Amino acid sequence: QSSVTVGGTLDLGLRQVRNGSVGSQKSEVSGANATSKLIIRGVEDLGGGLSAGFYLDGTILADTGVAGAAAPAGQFWDRRSTVSVASAQLGEVRLGRDWVPTHLVWTGFDPFMTLGIASANTFRSFAASRALGQAFGTAGEATTANPTLRVSNALEYFLPAGLAGIYGQAIVTAGEGGTPAAGGTRGEGFRLGWAGSGWNVAAAQFTTHNAAGDQSFKDQVYGASYDFGVVKLDVAQRRWLFGVDRTVNTQFGAVIPVGRGVIKLTYLRANQTGATAAQSAKDASLLGAGYVYSLSKRTALYAHVAQVENKGAATFAIPGGPAVSGTATAANYFGGQKSTAYEVGVRHDF
Amino acid sequence: QSSVTVGGTLDLGLRQVRNGSVGSQKSEVSGANATSKLIIRGVEDLGGGLSAGFYLDGTILADTGVAGAAAPAGQFWDRRSTVSVASAQLGEVRLGRDWVPTHLVWTGFDPFMTLGIASANTFRSFAASRALGQAFGTAGEATTANPTLRVSNALEYFLPAGLAGIYGQAIVTAGEGGTPAAGGTRGEGFRLGWAGSGWNVAAAQFTTHNAAGDQSFKDQVYGASYDFGVVKLDVAQRRWLFGVDRTVNTQFGAVIPVGRGVIKLTYLRANQTGATAAQSAKDASLLGAGYVYSLSKRTALYAHVAQVENKGAATFAIPGGPAVSGTATAANYFGGQKSTAYEVGVRHDF
Amino acid sequence: QSSVTVGGTLDLGLRQVRNGSVGSQKSEVSGANATSKLIIRGVEDLGGGLSAGFYLDGTILADTGVAGAAAPAGQFWDRRSTVSVASAQLGEVRLGRDWVPTHLVWTGFDPFMTLGIASANTFRSFAASRALGQAFGTAGEATTANPTLRVSNALEYFLPAGLAGIYGQAIVTAGEGGTPAAGGTRGEGFRLGWAGSGWNVAAAQFTTHNAAGDQSFKDQVYGASYDFGVVKLDVAQRRWLFGVDRTVNTQFGAVIPVGRGVIKLTYLRANQTGATAAQSAKDASLLGAGYVYSLSKRTALYAHVAQVENKGAATFAIPGGPAVSGTATAANYFGGQKSTAYEVGVRHDF
Repeated sequence: QSSVTVGGTLDLGLRQVRNGSVGSQKSEVSGANATSKLIIRGVEDLGGGLSAGFYLDGTILADTGVAGAAAPAGQFWDRRSTVSVASAQLGEVRLGRDWVPTHLVWTGFDPFMTLGIASANTFRSFAASRALGQAFGTAGEATTANPTLRVSNALEYFLPAGLAGIYGQAIVTAGEGGTPAAGGTRGEGFRLGWAGSGWNVAAAQFTTHNAAGDQSFKDQVYGASYDFGVVKLDVAQRRWLFGVDRTVNTQFGAVIPVGRGVIKLTYLRANQTGATAAQSAKDASLLGAGYVYSLSKRTALYAHVAQVENKGAATFAIPGGPAVSGTATAANYFGGQKSTAYEVGVRHDF
Repeated sequence: QSSVTVGGTLDLGLRQVRNGSVGSQKSEVSGANATSKLIIRGVEDLGGGLSAGFYLDGTILADTGVAGAAAPAGQFWDRRSTVSVASAQLGEVRLGRDWVPTHLVWTGFDPFMTLGIASANTFRSFAASRALGQAFGTAGEATTANPTLRVSNALEYFLPAGLAGIYGQAIVTAGEGGTPAAGGTRGEGFRLGWAGSGWNVAAAQFTTHNAAGDQSFKDQVYGASYDFGVVKLDVAQRRWLFGVDRTVNTQFGAVIPVGRGVIKLTYLRANQTGATAAQSAKDASLLGAGYVYSLSKRTALYAHVAQVENKGAATFAIPGGPAVSGTATAANYFGGQKSTAYEVGVRHDF
Repeated sequence: QSSVTVGGTLDLGLRQVRNGSVGSQKSEVSGANATSKLIIRGVEDLGGGLSAGFYLDGTILADTGVAGAAAPAGQFWDRRSTVSVASAQLGEVRLGRDWVPTHLVWTGFDPFMTLGIASANTFRSFAASRALGQAFGTAGEATTANPTLRVSNALEYFLPAGLAGIYGQAIVTAGEGGTPAAGGTRGEGFRLGWAGSGWNVAAAQFTTHNAAGDQSFKDQVYGASYDFGVVKLDVAQRRWLFGVDRTVNTQFGAVIPVGRGVIKLTYLRANQTGATAAQSAKDASLLGAGYVYSLSKRTALYAHVAQVENKGAATFAIPGGPAVSGTATAANYFGGQKSTAYEVGVRHDF
């Protein structure tokens, strides 16, 4: 029992989002710099380079005290719930619920780690991203599991450390007769990267076989970063492919250390393609900047600003604003408008 | 990670409630002396009198194993979920879900800490207290968030210690476009008190702006206690004001140390005012007594008795009895009757 | 606070189940060797042989990250949630949610501890076991509380240790006006056993008074095991009695230590009786075998195989296969067919 570690993060901030003519809204938000979460984990040394370990990790919406995901109901350990047997020489076999490898690469390059108003996941919207909506339905993100973030029922293999900077993994997941929206993803994928001499390059793919109509949905990511010391630059691209519908997100980022703080900059584009010219015109871009000041290794204050510009009739909006609609006759129609936001907060790791 | 503390309380008892002619019911109850709960918390010393801290606190219904609140769904940390940055000189800034200041004053004076059959919260009933029902709807307490206990999305400031016994706080909460019943309270309030020389005096107010019809609901508390050594006496009043409807609760209490135990006495009155004489006649009173015997600092046995007397057509009932109705033609009509209860239990802090 | 222990188990495996002509399905499963769970518990020494303690224990479906039971909603600590005061001489008084004594005896004799595909609980099916279905309704097991496993609102007394190997308990539970399916069981029961000289013999009974139609449902178990050193053999019987409907499960088991591992064998029969000859013909049997290899005291690998044979129109199926029906005209009608399964996995205690 001595090996159990209880840890996590509480991160709370204040946000204001203006969605063009629809209006603006203030809110308190959880997890804009690092996800608020509770982690219980441990590792057992089995001798001979072998070890066993477990990892439980669940989201906390610290503004309201809600824990875990809304769907499936009761999914307290929504971020990760795994058991592993690992060999220092041969690598690790892991079972359970875990991150999809594509998300790991995507969030690893984003200066904002896919969190807050300037997140590289701003365009991961079922309502506004056509490829996602067509593959997984247009029910609200909050009430639907979806395999571009994490997957249940996974069997994974991870390469060992010590391969001259090469890292990677393979994954298969059991659908168990269910739908991805209900948490049952039948898929497989991989991640492969190399880190060294200031470089980090990586690529990943995850294919979901039981998306809508039992068509395949492909999620692909690749990226590279180089750390110049005074600044770390990155470029990454994530592609969601579903039949004729595709959303291609391209992200450019910079992280600049400044004393005890760090400045973060991001530029993100979503290039959408659909069956019609109108669908293909629904592109968008995001410009974001942030400053994080560390009070200690565990505690930081932060401030972020971001703006989303929609092209055509695209309706991407920064989360936390008033509800928007893609229906041209709706009072809150948002097609082609701008979403602007700022947020300040405090993050505490424990 | 070494600063994380896992603690809490398990408190279980056996209760019998008789609701006049409606009948009686036995039950096992959780939290009659202290709320059954799980707490995970920690503080980080940042140096120079600065510190950061987090606090997660969730109800356990230990009789059934249910954790957290029923509404909103998944609200595991329903009691508190906060992150703070504090200065020994300047005070504390806190964000998250927390107690309303009015509850802190009210429960601080009540010998029964608003728990169990003799609780000063017995008249905090949506069904029977007209001001609450009109402001927040008459859905069951169990299925509705309401801002007379705790609020989400709060930004708070607390005075530092060392102000000659003066303590206090200010709070604002974001409604985020939701209703209080769904957990979105737009409000603000304060608490101010002084403790010293055996005295404790305090007052608090919290105003909810998005109650029914977007009318303001006012929650006001003030009270005083003095510790004579052989007995500690208190008097406190809580006022719920919503348009013409108001419920004014007045509480008198005594706490008498007896060896390793303590005797607790309470007398509580609810004085209601409505638009009609019949509504204004729905008053009630509660008489309660209890004995708590400490087996250690952490563990105690307790026994409580209490009786509620309804005036007019009031239908206040001690929780845990058979269901009662305020509809005169219902088989379980309870208007103007008495609710009588006793309970015994064990409380264990960990 | 120093007495709080955080522990538990993560157990994940891969399973394939073939349900006769209905087809087969692969899945990832949680808890086939030991239930995946989180436990928070502690004991306080009160001096003079007295102690107080608490125990919180909740299921984790580690394949999806879901914690606790689906019904009642929010029942995170579904396995156990108790507070105790114990005397070394006089025994223990315990309140809260806990195991029914019949399950403790039944699972104690089963080599597979009522878990995985070869579980002695395979015939604990509301849909296929007539006595259970008639008493508690035919809603899915997953969405219904039922008192053959655990009960809420319990008051228990446990015999102290040191009675020459005799152990036992008595239990009463409060129905609180609810139904067993909703978590409110009005019942009482006991467990009595003796362990010594390689023998373990035990019997238990639990009677539910508020089953369907407020009829009594009786749950009886008795069994014996003897440890020869090279093999431990057991025989046990569990009887579910509800009016004319009864299901009698008889189990024979063997556990054979082999180096760092153990071989487990089980044979189980369900003998059903109903109002008609067709109902009485719905018997079934299960044959199961397993091998568990310990990597350490805390971590093990395991492999299980099992087959269920249905007689008459019985429809017992090993969990994890494709959905089956007892309706003769349904496409997935399963009456009288075989369910065959294997599973491999890893268990890690923490």
